[in-house]
Amino acid sequence: MERGLYEADHDHFREVVREFVRREVEPHIQQWNDAHSTGRDIWVSAGEHGIIGTSVPDQYGGPGVRDFRYRMVVCEEFARVGATSLNSSFSLQDDILIPYVTALGTDEQKSRWLPDMAAGRKIMAVAMTEPGTGSDLKGITTSGTRTDGGWLVNGSKTFITSGIQSDYVVVVAKTDPAGGTDAFTLFVVEEGMPGFARGRRLDKIGLQGQDTAELFFEDVFVPDDDVLGVVGGGFRQLMAHLPLERLSIAAMALASADAALAWTLTYTTGREAFGRSVADFQNSRFVLADMATELDVTRAFVDKCVLAFNKGSLTAVDASKAKLWATEVQNRVVDRCLQLHGGYGYMMEYPIAHAYLDARVQKIYGGTNQIMRQIIGRDLVGRR
Amino acid sequence: MERGLYEADHDHFREVVREFVRREVEPHIQQWNDAHSTGRDIWVSAGEHGIIGTSVPDQYGGPGVRDFRYRMVVCEEFARVGATSLNSSFSLQDDILIPYVTALGTDEQKSRWLPDMAAGRKIMAVAMTEPGTGSDLKGITTSGTRTDGGWLVNGSKTFITSGIQSDYVVVVAKTDPAGGTDAFTLFVVEEGMPGFARGRRLDKIGLQGQDTAELFFEDVFVPDDDVLGVVGGGFRQLMAHLPLERLSIAAMALASADAALAWTLTYTTGREAFGRSVADFQNSRFVLADMATELDVTRAFVDKCVLAFNKGSLTAVDASKAKLWATEVQNRVVDRCLQLHGGYGYMMEYPIAHAYLDARVQKIYGGTNQIMRQIIGRDLVGRR
Amino acid sequence: MERGLYEADHDHFREVVREFVRREVEPHIQQWNDAHSTGRDIWVSAGEHGIIGTSVPDQYGGPGVRDFRYRMVVCEEFARVGATSLNSSFSLQDDILIPYVTALGTDEQKSRWLPDMAAGRKIMAVAMTEPGTGSDLKGITTSGTRTDGGWLVNGSKTFITSGIQSDYVVVVAKTDPAGGTDAFTLFVVEEGMPGFARGRRLDKIGLQGQDTAELFFEDVFVPDDDVLGVVGGGFRQLMAHLPLERLSIAAMALASADAALAWTLTYTTGREAFGRSVADFQNSRFVLADMATELDVTRAFVDKCVLAFNKGSLTAVDASKAKLWATEVQNRVVDRCLQLHGGYGYMMEYPIAHAYLDARVQKIYGGTNQIMRQIIGRDLVGRR
Amino acid sequence: MERGLYEADHDHFREVVREFVRREVEPHIQQWNDAHSTGRDIWVSAGEHGIIGTSVPDQYGGPGVRDFRYRMVVCEEFARVGATSLNSSFSLQDDILIPYVTALGTDEQKSRWLPDMAAGRKIMAVAMTEPGTGSDLKGITTSGTRTDGGWLVNGSKTFITSGIQSDYVVVVAKTDPAGGTDAFTLFVVEEGMPGFARGRRLDKIGLQGQDTAELFFEDVFVPDDDVLGVVGGGFRQLMAHLPLERLSIAAMALASADAALAWTLTYTTGREAFGRSVADFQNSRFVLADMATELDVTRAFVDKCVLAFNKGSLTAVDASKAKLWATEVQNRVVDRCLQLHGGYGYMMEYPIAHAYLDARVQKIYGGTNQIMRQIIGRDLVGRR
Repeated sequence: MERGLYEADHDHFREVVREFVRREVEPHIQQWNDAHSTGRDIWVSAGEHGIIGTSVPDQYGGPGVRDFRYRMVVCEEFARVGATSLNSSFSLQDDILIPYVTALGTDEQKSRWLPDMAAGRKIMAVAMTEPGTGSDLKGITTSGTRTDGGWLVNGSKTFITSGIQSDYVVVVAKTDPAGGTDAFTLFVVEEGMPGFARGRRLDKIGLQGQDTAELFFEDVFVPDDDVLGVVGGGFRQLMAHLPLERLSIAAMALASADAALAWTLTYTTGREAFGRSVADFQNSRFVLADMATELDVTRAFVDKCVLAFNKGSLTAVDASKAKLWATEVQNRVVDRCLQLHGGYGYMMEYPIAHAYLDARVQKIYGGTNQIMRQIIGRDLVGRR
Repeated sequence: MERGLYEADHDHFREVVREFVRREVEPHIQQWNDAHSTGRDIWVSAGEHGIIGTSVPDQYGGPGVRDFRYRMVVCEEFARVGATSLNSSFSLQDDILIPYVTALGTDEQKSRWLPDMAAGRKIMAVAMTEPGTGSDLKGITTSGTRTDGGWLVNGSKTFITSGIQSDYVVVVAKTDPAGGTDAFTLFVVEEGMPGFARGRRLDKIGLQGQDTAELFFEDVFVPDDDVLGVVGGGFRQLMAHLPLERLSIAAMALASADAALAWTLTYTTGREAFGRSVADFQNSRFVLADMATELDVTRAFVDKCVLAFNKGSLTAVDASKAKLWATEVQNRVVDRCLQLHGGYGYMMEYPIAHAYLDARVQKIYGGTNQIMRQIIGRDLVGRR
Repeated sequence: MERGLYEADHDHFREVVREFVRREVEPHIQQWNDAHSTGRDIWVSAGEHGIIGTSVPDQYGGPGVRDFRYRMVVCEEFARVGATSLNSSFSLQDDILIPYVTALGTDEQKSRWLPDMAAGRKIMAVAMTEPGTGSDLKGITTSGTRTDGGWLVNGSKTFITSGIQSDYVVVVAKTDPAGGTDAFTLFVVEEGMPGFARGRRLDKIGLQGQDTAELFFEDVFVPDDDVLGVVGGGFRQLMAHLPLERLSIAAMALASADAALAWTLTYTTGREAFGRSVADFQNSRFVLADMATELDVTRAFVDKCVLAFNKGSLTAVDASKAKLWATEVQNRVVDRCLQLHGGYGYMMEYPIAHAYLDARVQKIYGGTNQIMRQIIGRDLVGRR
Repeated sequence: MERGLYEADHDHFREVVREFVRREVEPHIQQWNDAHSTGRDIWVSAGEHGIIGTSVPDQYGGPGVRDFRYRMVVCEEFARVGATSLNSSFSLQDDILIPYVTALGTDEQKSRWLPDMAAGRKIMAVAMTEPGTGSDLKGITTSGTRTDGGWLVNGSKTFITSGIQSDYVVVVAKTDPAGGTDAFTLFVVEEGMPGFARGRRLDKIGLQGQDTAELFFEDVFVPDDDVLGVVGGGFRQLMAHLPLERLSIAAMALASADAALAWTLTYTTGREAFGRSVADFQNSRFVLADMATELDVTRAFVDKCVLAFNKGSLTAVDASKAKLWATEVQNRVVDRCLQLHGGYGYMMEYPIAHAYLDARVQKIYGGTNQIMRQIIGRDLVGRR
């Protein structure tokens, strides 16, 4: 069945991305994993090739493309070679931070930040989660206290993607001790500001090429010019961007699972056991058939969400469904693919092993899948 | 998210169907179940309202609409009130038999059979399965032997939907004892032909309003004029129509599961336990959320298959995926919905109980879901 | 692996039961299903053969055997021929009502009721559930009001097994309008008491040979002599007997699933498709292997619970685990067995179809499996 | 429910093991993981404390205890602190190699090898799998060719646990080019034999503290004195020891999953989200309840297998069931436990993350779970 998602321009763009991946990504994945960081060269190169920053408006140095299908192409091509860490890091910049700045920044802020971000010269991170809070944003205790000409930020954050490399960090802080929906504000903290310290790099199950870290803020002075959006509007502003974040997780989930199935088809048709190919056993075939079906079904839904997003009609609930569903499917698929690899599936030299490790966090970040069910259930039944 | 499947004309048609269901279907479901037959009145009335026979070309008395979305509307509206048996019986006529006759019949045959079928005056059945064969059509032993001016058909068939009520039966018989793909021919046996006998009505788990039966053929003379399609071409002719049959099963699966979820939302929000509504328990909500997600995802795929069918591009493999997936989802959903009804879910006065019983056969007929996996797996891996 | 549960006496008893089943049960199952009742003859005959009432103390006419393994033998032998309804009805008498009377009755009451119950001449039912309450016993509204020399019982009950045939009904009623744990009392209502009426027989998905009904109580006078146990102690008394009830459901679940697997092994090894036996396909074998494993594992646990019960150490939590686990396994197993039967699995002439219908209620009655999870979870985490 | 497996002597032994773990294991786990090796000290110390080599007969320096419950105690105590790699390495020595030598060795061989193995001074590995063969032993191509006074071994092996550290390696080689069941022989290759080379350490998903490697054999001369068991009897000899190997995998699976649940109970009752503990959410409790149930059920079966093994009656099929079941349960449980940890579950500083990584191989090694299903299915249905 024809997918019916992409048009000629996307196919064109895919060629560019594929060539970029072949030359600049694939040869370095292992080294990035070993270094637990992608370094900055690949960011700059991606900026030069128009592979990141696609949504940055042209007055700020980007192509100004809001069509998420271009992002899908990147996700798919990166996933095809198992470049999950880079995929996830770029997604953070392109699907979360650039949209924040574009939507919430003043002209001055956009002029200051976006050109460098589009060019891959500067990396921005977002710091929401704290040691004591997970998906429960209202539990945040990092504080922003009013001072002359700005704010003093105090607190600590954890699980911060690009936590080591980032030049800017959007910090979510509580600016009204009374709490409530209007108590939070977004501050852009820059590398070098006094009182801002990076903690240790966190050792994770997967996404080895990504620098995830703790961050500490001790009386960090953030001038008024570096407040992003409205004081007290942080919570709503974050909420407004969750659909895109969740859609991008779903897109990566689908792309990664597709890649895993493709590798597994290659492996099982080539590998012999008991005198025939692994794929020739009825059980293998049934498992492969179930996975192919599950992925086609998932694709139909994710693609529909992409088009809805492009039209501006993707709801928070539908994005939660996409995130929940696609990440569960990804994990189910990758696990079965690994099993079909036998002992080799457990060896890190096979991409399926990395896919297994990288997949697991997808059910957790961007709001755990339990939070997704909560959101969807509330929509069905009403808040009580 | 907007579904994006239907257009104004379909919505219009839905109004007609809904009114028809309200007046002519809903009040009779229980009685049809008790009688194990819908009787003929509802067929004639459906014919008058343009609800069956939609695909019959206009020169043979139908509206000639090949757009499957009209069929979807019927499936959905019937499912909404739990009229599964009627849904399935009409589907047999509209999605299997009318397409056979339209595609394979001579002008004379079409003139003879289609007007009555479009009008609901005549019911046609198809007899493939035999006591000794399930999804394995090549194992058929019912034989067609050449004789003067026609054929003598001998054998027996089982699991025949509309087996008691049907006026015509398309019988698949082996006309070449050597076997092979070219060994089968389709014969139209009419009520009253000497040697044609109906066996007992089969007592089934569900689909109580449907007359499923065994059929016996003892030297039934079928004149050449009643051979449908090419002698020896039966197998390929059946194969050619499987995608539509499987799509229609998927459509009914989705519609039935949607209905089950809707009933369950109503039940669980209205029913109290331990001082709050059943839907208010976190576990209930999570289960409801999972089901709603699963159905939205399934809908995206089935809708895509419907549009592909309309364009003539639905492949056998994709139809198999739709059938496999949607019927597995239907059964998973209906089972959880039943559980959320507590003890009432086990009582036949609740539609969810009927939905549970009716759902089970969907994983079996139209080719078991194991056969679907075989077809899909072979497509992935190649025939070996 | 040797099961290690039974001893020579049990094997001996099994021979008696098996012969009884062959002669008196198996030939009548269909007729009981059609009549939606077992009638009374089989009860009396079972009494004569020592197959019911095994736990009735000898001074009241029974053998006084508290060893649950004898009951297991009955469950297994009845399940082997698909006599689920009878199994469930006898279990109600033997595992619930006789233990109530034995534990709670006065000598006079025991003398009055137990000999007839042991002999199968009288059938006792228990009426807990009400139209407005499911597993939430504290929501009971049937009331017992103090009057001269006894109580007036008012209210209605539903889902009452043996609701039509029973001679006595233990009615749970609220005797303290203030509610709370001490608000409930057990009354034994007898057939013929003024104001006691049977409602219609309830039409269920399965357990067709069982008479399940609604019961109505309008100013039914219950003399003090027919109060069972302590006034106000009903709730605790019911609780005390739940472990045995749940163990017996688990035992029937295991026995039924074992039977289903045995039938399916016979069917799939005998049935051919595509030129070999169904059991010869790798997928069938894997499914069969998974089921055999799951049942062996389940058996180990249920057997352990049986021995713990015999020693008086089976906790409410462990019984809940057995009920939850065994009934989930039963449903999973029976569903897969049905699928391996292909189209025949959907036909009521095959015992697997009955097994499918009978299995579904096991996850609901005796406390839904959600209640089981609640009980087990509270034990793990503590009440909060 | 009382477990009923252990007696006072085992409880005594557990105290010893627990103290050993506290002092000698727990403080070193991280360092072993980082080094990808346990080093030799812990082996020697375990030997001194009587924690390894328990089954070595006393004439060869061990306590000669064949009761597997002592091994269970070790598995449980090591798992409790997450010492999976050490657990698995010791199991290889104690449950596979020492039994091989004890059963197959000559007196001279036993005198030569067992005392050092019991003392932890020497480590033995077994080399079955080859790059081209997984669970299919008959595909082995490593050859043993007759020469003067011994054999020349040629070939390569992979996935060899203790591949780097081992002093002795039992190599399975084909000594009859004609193949068949009688074509294989076991050779004990010693460190330092000319032509024997270690390949690189294999980088695995988990079991980081274990040295898994490739091994190469080029004209390695193995004297007749170092042939283990009968020439040509290798296949049968390996088969004879599979039940114990599989039982030990099941034992570790159960112990690891028990530990994971214990950690998760601690975590979820201590961790707050949205104003209450994670364990206080109904969904968390239900998940915890399901896991506790599943583990109790699994324990009943594994314990039964242990007692059967002790009596010498554990069959290959039952051991396969235990391995299949327990490792599937382990993976299901650990995955859900990780999810209940939220983001922390993905961080390597939490033991649940290690448990997740270590668990995955259990469905693969010792014969994949597909092989287990094959063995069980063949037993049910017969070989065809």
